[in-house]
Amino acid sequence: MPALQVSVIGSGAEHEERAEEVGRLLAERGATVVTGGLGEVMAAAARGAKSAGGTTVGILPGETRAGANEWVDHVVVTGVGHARNLAVVASGDAVIAVGGRHGTLAEIGFALVLGRPVVVLEPGWEVEGAMRAQTAEQAVRLVLDAVA
Amino acid sequence: MPALQVSVIGSGAEHEERAEEVGRLLAERGATVVTGGLGEVMAAAARGAKSAGGTTVGILPGETRAGANEWVDHVVVTGVGHARNLAVVASGDAVIAVGGRHGTLAEIGFALVLGRPVVVLEPGWEVEGAMRAQTAEQAVRLVLDAVA
Amino acid sequence: MPALQVSVIGSGAEHEERAEEVGRLLAERGATVVTGGLGEVMAAAARGAKSAGGTTVGILPGETRAGANEWVDHVVVTGVGHARNLAVVASGDAVIAVGGRHGTLAEIGFALVLGRPVVVLEPGWEVEGAMRAQTAEQAVRLVLDAVA
Amino acid sequence: MPALQVSVIGSGAEHEERAEEVGRLLAERGATVVTGGLGEVMAAAARGAKSAGGTTVGILPGETRAGANEWVDHVVVTGVGHARNLAVVASGDAVIAVGGRHGTLAEIGFALVLGRPVVVLEPGWEVEGAMRAQTAEQAVRLVLDAVA
Repeated sequence: MPALQVSVIGSGAEHEERAEEVGRLLAERGATVVTGGLGEVMAAAARGAKSAGGTTVGILPGETRAGANEWVDHVVVTGVGHARNLAVVASGDAVIAVGGRHGTLAEIGFALVLGRPVVVLEPGWEVEGAMRAQTAEQAVRLVLDAVA
Repeated sequence: MPALQVSVIGSGAEHEERAEEVGRLLAERGATVVTGGLGEVMAAAARGAKSAGGTTVGILPGETRAGANEWVDHVVVTGVGHARNLAVVASGDAVIAVGGRHGTLAEIGFALVLGRPVVVLEPGWEVEGAMRAQTAEQAVRLVLDAVA
Repeated sequence: MPALQVSVIGSGAEHEERAEEVGRLLAERGATVVTGGLGEVMAAAARGAKSAGGTTVGILPGETRAGANEWVDHVVVTGVGHARNLAVVASGDAVIAVGGRHGTLAEIGFALVLGRPVVVLEPGWEVEGAMRAQTAEQAVRLVLDAVA
Repeated sequence: MPALQVSVIGSGAEHEERAEEVGRLLAERGATVVTGGLGEVMAAAARGAKSAGGTTVGILPGETRAGANEWVDHVVVTGVGHARNLAVVASGDAVIAVGGRHGTLAEIGFALVLGRPVVVLEPGWEVEGAMRAQTAEQAVRLVLDAVA
């Protein structure tokens, strides 16, 4: 049976430090970290999870492993381009957004369509239906409470 | 060669009247109206286009034509669920959002990722990068200017 | 309400002449021709349909209209790569295969999963569950009978 | 960095025993077993892998974990229906087919489009471009040789 899975979404090099902390905290609490498998926030979240001995899944848009970051344990090659954003959020029991632009907005929209709890780590998109957190610690606590 | 194609996205019965006007105005200006093919805003936009003698394409999420509204001329059955939202906005040279909730937000996000001009007919989601219009007439003028 | 839609799938320059005849015959019988929107068999089928005054839909794999052949009336940009093959066959009330290699095999498989009647114009893939035709005329008659 | 990943595809209760052996042998050789995450051949391959202490990934078609078999360690919820078949084969460095009907045929087609080595464990679909094996042992040896 799968462990708890939490998807970490977003982008922006300036958000990497916080994403890494989110990944580390999730791993410390036993959650597998799911991401889109590429760089910046995705890589940082996976790196944080690995630093705490956790497990990571990366769900890629292309047709090969090209571009997967080195902290992905299990790589899913979807071949469906941006539609893989749907798989990224659907594969999480909950979702944490760290930074991000329009692709992240699409993911937040899909996550809420699917009824997944979503936490936006400030600053970030303000979307009705998503929770907000000031710190990585709070974001992780909110998603773990939501799925408890 | 295809005519200009404009995608009309959104949901909510209270927005149908304005969606119908958007569809009608687009058809009058020679644009094919692309929608998600189902009810409410999607049906209203297609109905408006047909009332002006226009052409409509409906891009469905399921594996059959079930649920397609009667104003769809050409029906695309994608079989990919909510990932069809990507196809809906990608198939438009520009996008107009009328009402809508989280699925519409995902579509706006994808449209902006793909570089499609997006107009939100107020009231509606406020998204950085999307234009805003007060009336159906203004929304149609903005998208036609954007793709000119 | 949409007209009858028949998807023509396949590839291979050596099969273009027969694909064009299939497209022409389908249009003469009032069916809209759906294809993957690109070259070779897809272009030939659409060209045949247009030569008879018919209507065509092209369902593309990429994120733009790039590569669409000039005989596509209504272009659907899916953004989902090879997964658009599912949409191509799902959008037909029936499917005719003309030539083709492994992508066509995937389409035949999907069409049969979805319960669409499939006719393979010989020579072509031999698949249990698909009908076979010796001529374009026979292929078109078989699909029209199957959906009658 | 991900371990070697091999996708096991197919269906049919009568093929479960051989699928379980394939899964076990792959795990013994250190490969992660990727499947479509549901029943019959997919469940048997995952069960075999777990019996040997291996790791499994299940890539589901729906929008929730519903239907995932109990031997899936890491569950990917794609939300894209049969288009998840593309992700199943794309996520393997190589593919082994055990039994299966038209959905499996679509997967074999996609795997060959993407250039993945494919082995069909007899009896099964005969597809130009796919290797054939008489035993689970031979099937596993063929895929490991192909990716070496």
